[in-house]
Amino acid sequence: MDPLTLAGLGLVFLSIILSTLMDGNSFGPLIGPSSLVLVLFGALGGALAGFRMPDALSLPKGFIKAITGSPPEPDAVVTQLMGFAESARREGILALEEGIKTVEDEFLKAGLQMVVDGVEGDVVREVMETEIESMQARHANMIMIFGKLAEYAPAMGMLGTVIGLINMLGNLADPSALGKGMALSLLTTLYGVFFANIFFAPMGAKLAKLSKMEVAARELTLEGILAVREGASPRLLVEKLEARLPPDLRVGAKVRMGQAA
Amino acid sequence: MDPLTLAGLGLVFLSIILSTLMDGNSFGPLIGPSSLVLVLFGALGGALAGFRMPDALSLPKGFIKAITGSPPEPDAVVTQLMGFAESARREGILALEEGIKTVEDEFLKAGLQMVVDGVEGDVVREVMETEIESMQARHANMIMIFGKLAEYAPAMGMLGTVIGLINMLGNLADPSALGKGMALSLLTTLYGVFFANIFFAPMGAKLAKLSKMEVAARELTLEGILAVREGASPRLLVEKLEARLPPDLRVGAKVRMGQAA
Amino acid sequence: MDPLTLAGLGLVFLSIILSTLMDGNSFGPLIGPSSLVLVLFGALGGALAGFRMPDALSLPKGFIKAITGSPPEPDAVVTQLMGFAESARREGILALEEGIKTVEDEFLKAGLQMVVDGVEGDVVREVMETEIESMQARHANMIMIFGKLAEYAPAMGMLGTVIGLINMLGNLADPSALGKGMALSLLTTLYGVFFANIFFAPMGAKLAKLSKMEVAARELTLEGILAVREGASPRLLVEKLEARLPPDLRVGAKVRMGQAA
Amino acid sequence: MDPLTLAGLGLVFLSIILSTLMDGNSFGPLIGPSSLVLVLFGALGGALAGFRMPDALSLPKGFIKAITGSPPEPDAVVTQLMGFAESARREGILALEEGIKTVEDEFLKAGLQMVVDGVEGDVVREVMETEIESMQARHANMIMIFGKLAEYAPAMGMLGTVIGLINMLGNLADPSALGKGMALSLLTTLYGVFFANIFFAPMGAKLAKLSKMEVAARELTLEGILAVREGASPRLLVEKLEARLPPDLRVGAKVRMGQAA
Amino acid sequence: MDPLTLAGLGLVFLSIILSTLMDGNSFGPLIGPSSLVLVLFGALGGALAGFRMPDALSLPKGFIKAITGSPPEPDAVVTQLMGFAESARREGILALEEGIKTVEDEFLKAGLQMVVDGVEGDVVREVMETEIESMQARHANMIMIFGKLAEYAPAMGMLGTVIGLINMLGNLADPSALGKGMALSLLTTLYGVFFANIFFAPMGAKLAKLSKMEVAARELTLEGILAVREGASPRLLVEKLEARLPPDLRVGAKVRMGQAA
Repeated sequence: MDPLTLAGLGLVFLSIILSTLMDGNSFGPLIGPSSLVLVLFGALGGALAGFRMPDALSLPKGFIKAITGSPPEPDAVVTQLMGFAESARREGILALEEGIKTVEDEFLKAGLQMVVDGVEGDVVREVMETEIESMQARHANMIMIFGKLAEYAPAMGMLGTVIGLINMLGNLADPSALGKGMALSLLTTLYGVFFANIFFAPMGAKLAKLSKMEVAARELTLEGILAVREGASPRLLVEKLEARLPPDLRVGAKVRMGQAA
Repeated sequence: MDPLTLAGLGLVFLSIILSTLMDGNSFGPLIGPSSLVLVLFGALGGALAGFRMPDALSLPKGFIKAITGSPPEPDAVVTQLMGFAESARREGILALEEGIKTVEDEFLKAGLQMVVDGVEGDVVREVMETEIESMQARHANMIMIFGKLAEYAPAMGMLGTVIGLINMLGNLADPSALGKGMALSLLTTLYGVFFANIFFAPMGAKLAKLSKMEVAARELTLEGILAVREGASPRLLVEKLEARLPPDLRVGAKVRMGQAA
Repeated sequence: MDPLTLAGLGLVFLSIILSTLMDGNSFGPLIGPSSLVLVLFGALGGALAGFRMPDALSLPKGFIKAITGSPPEPDAVVTQLMGFAESARREGILALEEGIKTVEDEFLKAGLQMVVDGVEGDVVREVMETEIESMQARHANMIMIFGKLAEYAPAMGMLGTVIGLINMLGNLADPSALGKGMALSLLTTLYGVFFANIFFAPMGAKLAKLSKMEVAARELTLEGILAVREGASPRLLVEKLEARLPPDLRVGAKVRMGQAA
Repeated sequence: MDPLTLAGLGLVFLSIILSTLMDGNSFGPLIGPSSLVLVLFGALGGALAGFRMPDALSLPKGFIKAITGSPPEPDAVVTQLMGFAESARREGILALEEGIKTVEDEFLKAGLQMVVDGVEGDVVREVMETEIESMQARHANMIMIFGKLAEYAPAMGMLGTVIGLINMLGNLADPSALGKGMALSLLTTLYGVFFANIFFAPMGAKLAKLSKMEVAARELTLEGILAVREGASPRLLVEKLEARLPPDLRVGAKVRMGQAA
Repeated sequence: MDPLTLAGLGLVFLSIILSTLMDGNSFGPLIGPSSLVLVLFGALGGALAGFRMPDALSLPKGFIKAITGSPPEPDAVVTQLMGFAESARREGILALEEGIKTVEDEFLKAGLQMVVDGVEGDVVREVMETEIESMQARHANMIMIFGKLAEYAPAMGMLGTVIGLINMLGNLADPSALGKGMALSLLTTLYGVFFANIFFAPMGAKLAKLSKMEVAARELTLEGILAVREGASPRLLVEKLEARLPPDLRVGAKVRMGQAA
């Protein structure tokens, strides 16, 4: 689990609290259950109205993944694939059968199984690419829900403020109530901006980031499996796959041989 | 019918009512027939001015579909296509003729008919892809109308507010009317934000979502028909098509055989 | 001519008038020749500054087309092309020469002429696609002018309002003039929002819609001409081309034979 | 030189002056050297901070081009290329050498020279397309600077207004200064909106327009050169190239023969 | 190091200071540590919440690169590659081995090494393109962080202003504190606009610019290496590569021979 998402959200909270204290402002007037109700449930209702029930049910999972989700480790996959490339060259494709059983990554496992089963390279690529695309589409769907939440929260905030202002303007007789009425109206705007920028938008961004990394890792896996199938030398396979890693992870085939041993 | 769209819209309504009550605000000043007229008919007029008569006439259909529309079930199609793949391998392509008659999905039916008629694979793909694209274009057109409605509603709201403000500013003599005039002006803004965010935008989003699912289902159907035509084994066909389904629907060829039996 | 554009604009006007009357507001303060001058000519100047003289001169034509323009009827073209496909199969490509003379659609005529002249299929496609693209570019240019007008009108409106406010704020001595000064200032904002949303944006949208339909009709024509050239059967040609039509226009080759007869 | 850019900017100026006079507003309060300094230099600084020194140095050239730049005349190039196609067919490719010397357009000249030098068609296309792309990238860079200027000008305007408001709010003791302070604050907003919409945005749009036309002209030239190289008949060459011209410039090969003679 | 980024930022500062002085405004009310805390740390927290720890750690490096980073010099690479093309033609590919040792550019070195090692052209292209793409993805990630910072800074500014306004409106009893409270509230808006437009946005733009230039330089390098591998003549190689340079750097093969000697 990468701690940055929680740390980032914590930093925002801290900076709001700190700056409010520095200005001598109090937190009392910032608490408004009615604004919370309107912004949170209103945004949720508006956002979900554009989706389907299974999407709504998987929202908590997306929420947790945005906070605690870790991207895959493509580095380890390169070493694993190098090992398969070596066995395939030395003992033939069928010899991979044994090794596949120990593979944990479902995507890598299914791909190698197809290779061992003698499925054509084009078909392997097609099936695996389709799976990557459909995973990406599922991710994009969840990311879009968070995007809609970030879009509807300030809109609900504005709605609440306008409702409050209209009520206040109809009761101008009591000037002492004016300030409080307007403060209360503005509170919904505050909550709308707050939830959009502190929760929904960064979480959507985090999910988008994780999705991109997961897709990249699977594309690397796919290229590796096809290279194994075509009998590429372990050295060339590592060279090809490491071009997809950040420079500091490109240790070369020799170092990986040592690691694997 | 998926209940989420209605439930979502209901949740928004509820949260507005609840938060208004919690603040001790009244609903009276929020009712404004003139604002309703300006925002609804103004947005409708502005949006439709960019379209053609048949688009306007199909708007109610789009409205109903956004509320009650269900996406196709690609899962059942996979099992169906697996059955056709099996018959085609055992008894030849022509043997499909009988089974086609029982197919309800018009798109699948027309595609299989072309295969039985011996139309070339490239032509089958071209005709069916063209049909998918033209369906997608029809959907995009309807989605765009809802997008325009969501765009024009707040613009009309702002227009009404500015008209109200200008009238109010010309009559500053009576200060007691000031607050009411401004409240009335703001009401159009409220209605504009309300209709854009509570109705038009989520409905457009729902239609976009349904369109994407329908396109995906038809692409799956197309790939399946072509696989049947090329004499793919039922097992490979299921593997190829299930890569397009969400993971929990990937039950494999054996389970599907059992279901079909 | 499709009446929807005019009807839509009329509906907007009507809803503005109706809602103004319902609120007991008067139209007097909404009339401001200076605001009209600033918004209309300012937007025109700003928009045209980014274009060239021939674009400016064709603006009235674009304006009229947005109001009265009708899309082409691809349905009739399908029947026409089916007829040519039949003659070509029965009597050979050269026999089309006679029929071409009666064709009114310039694009269809030029394409068939190339086929009769024995131009290669690839060249026919290239020349016709280039022509479609350059038509599309001309349309996009005109649509962009309307887009710029819709963009500059509110900017000019804001400019005028700020100019008015600055003048008003410099003369706060006379409070009775305050309201009128501010009302006058806001008028430019009103005109900017009005022209952008009631005229320029819907007209741009209408032109974009017409352009898309014209491109689709020409692509259908192009595919049909190439099918005639390759000696496709009338039945297959109709099947291919009807996939590009909305479902209710797909009557099939037999019905079209009857129509043509 | 196309006079529309200057005329458009003049029209905007005129409409601002006219509407200000019609409202009885004065120009005195609209003059603010401090606002001019902040908006112009602030926008320049912010925009250029994202670019490199050579980009900054070529900005005046871009400014002049936006005002006085003319697009190329692809019409004349078609006739020229038709001539080369004829010579090439009659006397062979090498006979073009003499004619090339009189060509003024550097791009056409270099392309024909490669053809005479016997460079492969694919290489000619690659070299010329690379050059078009790198020209387009240079244009896009300059257009982006104007885009950034149009983006930073209103931001600087808002910055200045907020700075002014903060100072004014700290000195509420003297009410007579209130109006003037606020007017002065608003002036920066005015200048920001003015420069963005009257200068930077239309100039960027004009450069984008010129770039598109220059790219189209060069693509036409490239296709023509390749057709000459492949020994296309003058008639077919004219037909192919004229499909890229607006309809009223499509005069056909015969008319061009007459012009060239 | 290109001085424009620092100079641009300096110009913005200068124009703010100058215009504030010209208006007789003071800087005292513009200093607000609480606003600085909220905008800077709030934006940092919100932006980083969407990324991962390694991204956060590389932020200072991105910051420095935006200020001092220089683009690569593709001009020198052309001359270098011309030299390699000549040796390869005269003495064979293997003769490059010696020259490679002196190459400093890691990307060029690795590419030439693959050529000397006899790796297939397609594989060389694939490996090098993958590396360019993964470099581009790393750049895009850093650019996105700056984009998010520029997005969150004004949002945090608005948040702070609303918090301040709500507190102020709750204490309307003391009118003398009104102005100061509002001035303090607006300060956060000022800081948000300031940091977004003066720091984060231009730095992101600068990084995007550098990335584009680096990608272009590497693509030129890649094309050059492949041309060397295919035994292109030094003259053709220079012609091909110079088409990617700005016109004033296209000196031709002869001049480069002189430079290299």
